[in-house]
Amino acid sequence: MKKIRAAIVGYGNIGRYTLQALEAAPDFEVAGIVRRAGAKDAPAELADYTVTDDIRNLQDVDVAILSTPTRSVEKYAKEILALGINTVDSFDIHTKIVDLRRSLNESAKAGGAVSIISAGWDPGSDSIVRTMLQAIAPKGITYTNFGPGMSMGHTVAVKAVEGVKAALSMTIPTGTGIHRRMVYVEIKEGYDFDKVAAAIKADAYFVNDETHVIEVPCVDDVIDMGHGVNLTRKGVSGKTQNQLFEFNMRINNPALTGQVLVCVARASMRQQPGCYTMIEIPVIDLLPGDREDLIKHLV
Amino acid sequence: MKKIRAAIVGYGNIGRYTLQALEAAPDFEVAGIVRRAGAKDAPAELADYTVTDDIRNLQDVDVAILSTPTRSVEKYAKEILALGINTVDSFDIHTKIVDLRRSLNESAKAGGAVSIISAGWDPGSDSIVRTMLQAIAPKGITYTNFGPGMSMGHTVAVKAVEGVKAALSMTIPTGTGIHRRMVYVEIKEGYDFDKVAAAIKADAYFVNDETHVIEVPCVDDVIDMGHGVNLTRKGVSGKTQNQLFEFNMRINNPALTGQVLVCVARASMRQQPGCYTMIEIPVIDLLPGDREDLIKHLV
Repeated sequence: MKKIRAAIVGYGNIGRYTLQALEAAPDFEVAGIVRRAGAKDAPAELADYTVTDDIRNLQDVDVAILSTPTRSVEKYAKEILALGINTVDSFDIHTKIVDLRRSLNESAKAGGAVSIISAGWDPGSDSIVRTMLQAIAPKGITYTNFGPGMSMGHTVAVKAVEGVKAALSMTIPTGTGIHRRMVYVEIKEGYDFDKVAAAIKADAYFVNDETHVIEVPCVDDVIDMGHGVNLTRKGVSGKTQNQLFEFNMRINNPALTGQVLVCVARASMRQQPGCYTMIEIPVIDLLPGDREDLIKHLV
Repeated sequence: MKKIRAAIVGYGNIGRYTLQALEAAPDFEVAGIVRRAGAKDAPAELADYTVTDDIRNLQDVDVAILSTPTRSVEKYAKEILALGINTVDSFDIHTKIVDLRRSLNESAKAGGAVSIISAGWDPGSDSIVRTMLQAIAPKGITYTNFGPGMSMGHTVAVKAVEGVKAALSMTIPTGTGIHRRMVYVEIKEGYDFDKVAAAIKADAYFVNDETHVIEVPCVDDVIDMGHGVNLTRKGVSGKTQNQLFEFNMRINNPALTGQVLVCVARASMRQQPGCYTMIEIPVIDLLPGDREDLIKHLV
């Protein structure tokens, strides 16, 4: 069987875990890694791979897995789709997903390629669960409770506050979609902890949430990549009330994102040209192997 | 907007709940109800609907929702697909799903229609969760734990044992996909409870499970239609171990089945001719409404 040739574009935390998921997948081949610095100072685990600063230097790429920062996804995706190469990404700004889908839908169709966007765990696999629960209990409320786990966005916001040397913002679920923020900081010399803490709490990222700021000697010592979700729905099926559903995960965050990206890279090979979110893709397309065999074991 | 015209074929327990789900759906119209006795002695809630013994007496049917016994699904589906009408069903014999799909795939393509099979909660919505979890943590084990709830198949098996007047078999999960059977029976006069209980435990349905048989004065007094699932997976994403997932439901069984049938009836209008299981259908197709709007709120 011909293997799917995937390139990894952007080699940070998610890129590293994506490589592991590609290496573990039976139906993929690594076409190469694209990073701004090219092969210069490439990490040791890339020794056996082609590392370049331009995807056009790689051979026969079927799909590019974008593990770049969210804000540069659109730019890279457009360039790569124009080459007729599929793209997948884990774009995570919920309010801008519809716009990105429109924009990449045009590029994908023009390039005769497929783009699957916002494919991680939320947005991503959680979106599939939310959509299914909305369908099977159409009236009711879904709460997505995140954590305990590190919030990348909130951590970056804390680091931008004057006087902060290092930071970690943990998301703690308190139920019904409400979250507490536990912020761990190292303070720069000459700054007053109380003032820095007040500035963090006043930041737009934190001002509406219960936020606790705690000074620690070494932020790096308290970071772990575990994360979690507790997604609940209480709703009505037909005219029957009180149908109860719950989805829980306790996972390594970048490892799950990398794996989801590899699954949708596979699924991209089975769609018509255009741009899709994960809820628009049949879940069977996420898996390798014979279709009837999958139905036999999973349905 | 033109509404989808659905016929209910077979009007037992699932049929009744399917009607409620159709009445609650904004995009459906009830084309009529097909039952063997036709309009004769039809229940009061059907007074406003056309009730007939032949689907060909109903006008402009887009989709037939089969709520007949599982074993007659194939026969009815073939006849109805030949009329160019879509069919959906909740066929639940896991080992025969692939065969049914092959058979109805031919009929559907010949009739230019769509069939979605095995659409309930298991097989059905659980299958979507199992497939997604297998994709995002490819190595590992999924356990589907059922109950506490009434098992239709086991209850029928108990009723067939000599000396049993009425029966209820409850499925109790004990974890890792292993189940205890709690069997509640009324005994016919002149029979010995101990002998009847021994016969039940020796039946093929029970011989491999931990089974307890309990005599009650009135089986009907202990029946409720609630059921549940606890589906777990512990697996590996890429090369990262110990990714933990769990899906729980506590639901009214026939109400959920009826609602799922209505969702897939809707989805059947959006597929190419052929036969599908739920894992082959994008979850977004289960929902009414504008696609971009759904993506905005659910992804």
